[in-house]
Amino acid sequence: MTIETVETHRAHGGTQGVYRHASGATGTTMTFAVFVPPAAAKGPCPVVTYLSGLTCTHANVMDKGEYRQAAAELGLIVVCPDTSPRGEGVADDPAWDMGQGAGFYVDATQAPWAPHFKMWSYVTQELPAVIAQHFPVDTARQGITGHSMGGHGALTVALRHPGRFKSTSAFAPIVAPTQVPWGQKALPGYLGPDTALWRQHDAVALIEDGARPPDLLVDQGTADSFLAGQLKPELLQAACDAAGIPLTLRLQEGYDHSYHFISTFMAEHLAWHAERLKA
Amino acid sequence: MTIETVETHRAHGGTQGVYRHASGATGTTMTFAVFVPPAAAKGPCPVVTYLSGLTCTHANVMDKGEYRQAAAELGLIVVCPDTSPRGEGVADDPAWDMGQGAGFYVDATQAPWAPHFKMWSYVTQELPAVIAQHFPVDTARQGITGHSMGGHGALTVALRHPGRFKSTSAFAPIVAPTQVPWGQKALPGYLGPDTALWRQHDAVALIEDGARPPDLLVDQGTADSFLAGQLKPELLQAACDAAGIPLTLRLQEGYDHSYHFISTFMAEHLAWHAERLKA
Repeated sequence: MTIETVETHRAHGGTQGVYRHASGATGTTMTFAVFVPPAAAKGPCPVVTYLSGLTCTHANVMDKGEYRQAAAELGLIVVCPDTSPRGEGVADDPAWDMGQGAGFYVDATQAPWAPHFKMWSYVTQELPAVIAQHFPVDTARQGITGHSMGGHGALTVALRHPGRFKSTSAFAPIVAPTQVPWGQKALPGYLGPDTALWRQHDAVALIEDGARPPDLLVDQGTADSFLAGQLKPELLQAACDAAGIPLTLRLQEGYDHSYHFISTFMAEHLAWHAERLKA
Repeated sequence: MTIETVETHRAHGGTQGVYRHASGATGTTMTFAVFVPPAAAKGPCPVVTYLSGLTCTHANVMDKGEYRQAAAELGLIVVCPDTSPRGEGVADDPAWDMGQGAGFYVDATQAPWAPHFKMWSYVTQELPAVIAQHFPVDTARQGITGHSMGGHGALTVALRHPGRFKSTSAFAPIVAPTQVPWGQKALPGYLGPDTALWRQHDAVALIEDGARPPDLLVDQGTADSFLAGQLKPELLQAACDAAGIPLTLRLQEGYDHSYHFISTFMAEHLAWHAERLKA
């Protein structure tokens, strides 16, 4: 699998790059960002994948996530994929919570999405293989995180790949998409009416159905306008409590849903990942 | 002078806001960003103004400058103005190095710029008064910095206001606009043919003509594509050497002209400012 370098910049002693490649999973050109820390000069580094939220591309967190200083200090590679296929001939929807920019990290089976919207396969299989081929990652040491829809992606990907991720965290994740409007629109839209399929993409349902991650870190701003209607971290707390999963759920006073929230706690998340990836 | 709050976000324990006001200097609505650190709850804080480069607004550094963590830790207010007047009835030029986004921190006297392009008055007089009125700043403790065209602005503003700024730094500044293409286009364009007026907006010329700042910090990336043609830090080094001004000029290996460079060294600049502002 070949990749094309779109741009690279020296940053915080490492290299922040943007790359694109022809994705077999989505049948489109996919763009992603990778930060390689200075420690990579000495050998393979642990890798943390950050999945972005609705409307975002790889660029939002690259520009506003403030992850490079901590990643450089901790020796972490950070991979930031796009949130959906894009381009000519790719289906879209005028709403911002469906279609391009809103892939929800599922493999769509329904028209008009099925031909390209295969973000589950992309982020769990194809992109990790591309990263392993082209970047100095230690694939035995992987962590995953994300924001909002990307927090949903991080949690569900981790829960369905036991043992693969040594560390999982999320910023203001959608924890129970089957129970909230965003998910109740996206899951039938992409997957059709079979609710059993939806549960495969719902972190709370996956825990209810037996998934047992070692531990989880979730930050959630109390001034987040989506907190009560779409995010509902109390549902994750209840599921983790019932399952005996150690969840560190931190309600951050006055923080909203923006990258000002994410960037404030990014370094702490990366430190949490590093602690587990280097254990 | 009243201001309107466009948005505020809790960030790194403080508040990042965006504000706008009717500027008397420019005759337009001007937008600016201010970060207020948590220390402001206990009393007035020192203030550092960051002047942005060509094509930028207040938003580039707010999004990509990574200044909030350090400013929060150091107790600094950070003010980020726009780079020119904008809007209906404001002159512009199809080139990106003239007109809107390229005010060069001068008071234009030439058509079509003279009616609105008064960025010198705006950043030296009007905006500081607005900030002093609406934010908890200690006006006895002011620092100034900037990038590229904004580094030019920071240096010239500081050099022409002896005693007002206790700390001055710049990222990849245009140090001698009278000697490089950007300045040789902008200065006559905005100020007309009198080269004596140009020298009032040229840091090297101001030092040659007697300005004596206590000290200066300048970072410059060695992979900056504008280094040899437009930035020429060696001219500033020579002027400071001749004048006995302590200049800390750091050539940063492999860094380019982007915000990846700025954000890498932002915390060190703010620490340098804090050391002088809190002395």
